Amino acid sequence: MKDKELITNEENNVARENVSAAVIKRLPRYFRYLRILIREGKMRISSAELSRRMNITASQIRQDLNCFGGFGQQGYGYNVNYLYARICELLGVGAGFQAVIIGGGNLGRALAKNEMFEKRGVDVVAIFDSDPELVGTSVNEIPVLHVDEFERYAATHTVDMAVLTLPKEYALEMAQRIAETDIIGIWNFTSCDLDGIDGDIIVENVHLGDSLMTLNYRLANRNNENR
Amino acid sequence: MKDKELITNEENNVARENVSAAVIKRLPRYFRYLRILIREGKMRISSAELSRRMNITASQIRQDLNCFGGFGQQGYGYNVNYLYARICELLGVGAGFQAVIIGGGNLGRALAKNEMFEKRGVDVVAIFDSDPELVGTSVNEIPVLHVDEFERYAATHTVDMAVLTLPKEYALEMAQRIAETDIIGIWNFTSCDLDGIDGDIIVENVHLGDSLMTLNYRLANRNNENR
Repeated sequence: MKDKELITNEENNVARENVSAAVIKRLPRYFRYLRILIREGKMRISSAELSRRMNITASQIRQDLNCFGGFGQQGYGYNVNYLYARICELLGVGAGFQAVIIGGGNLGRALAKNEMFEKRGVDVVAIFDSDPELVGTSVNEIPVLHVDEFERYAATHTVDMAVLTLPKEYALEMAQRIAETDIIGIWNFTSCDLDGIDGDIIVENVHLGDSLMTLNYRLANRNNENR
Repeated sequence: MKDKELITNEENNVARENVSAAVIKRLPRYFRYLRILIREGKMRISSAELSRRMNITASQIRQDLNCFGGFGQQGYGYNVNYLYARICELLGVGAGFQAVIIGGGNLGRALAKNEMFEKRGVDVVAIFDSDPELVGTSVNEIPVLHVDEFERYAATHTVDMAVLTLPKEYALEMAQRIAETDIIGIWNFTSCDLDGIDGDIIVENVHLGDSLMTLNYRLANRNNENR
């Protein structure tokens, strides 16, 4: 990370390497609000108005968007469609990633039916499970295959990410199997941390239980909460 | 928040007000690993071994646990059961919080069946929905009630938190209705930010779509990832 060149060509490239984790964390939020603006038919928006809607300071917005070469014009605001298209590009919405869900239990099936994937340009192509009652059925037109077929499937189809919704006892072993295929990312819904799997697969954790515990903590200590 | 007194009585009180957000974020992780140790029948653990298992430095562990008055003894390690009990207490596991799920769709029903609530000491007492097909049924022995009954139910039962799994179009209005009851927390699964609701209700966001977008971003930019 020492001698990286900052790319500033605004049209074709983006200074991605200069983007902090905090900005990346806010990008999906920009994505959500820009979708709303597009639905409302809004063509332009000032940083002041976007600030009011998103509850982020206008200077933070200008700073964030400048990280990507800057999309705004002074006194003229941001072009909503252009900004949306660039953020989609940055976020890989147009990348057409394909996902498989591993674990066809309640959560896995609920995710398979969720329009979140489609809205974010991710195509769920298969669900894997070991339950003979489930294998051979389909959920939201997505076939449920036996988990023994996983390696063969991954070798013969384009799969970019695996969504892990199986019981946590199997999570580490399954993650290792995934890491041995061409799959490049795991969206991990199990409470297992997946530390120590080989290979350089990217893991994004959801850890619902931890989120519930954080809420529990905040409720139990609410008299001390800084509000 | 200026003149808070730091409580240092180790047995009965905890210096909660001195605990940083970063430590609080790690607490559920300690909780998970301690559960595993208890299942393994382990009575004591050194910070070095906990460090190896949790992939956190030993000095970080000592520092984190010292925030709560310190549970360890030099050269003797931590008493696992005692540490677990204290962390449960801090996290409000024993508080016996009661939750309702608002939105009996796929995600709401999947959560109702998830053992995560029970494991973390939260009791799900009702599900609310407006779908006449669902109202009157039950999911995992939890009754599904009509959302019109919500205020009456909240007034006549102890409900501490509401889990929001309804379509995002209804999220803000519902959050406002919740804030007008005695419920003190919202676990928000909708993509709506719930900014601007009145009252001082505590909101913990999950925002699955944002998490998926972050993974998308990392996959699309993986050649730049610092690994």
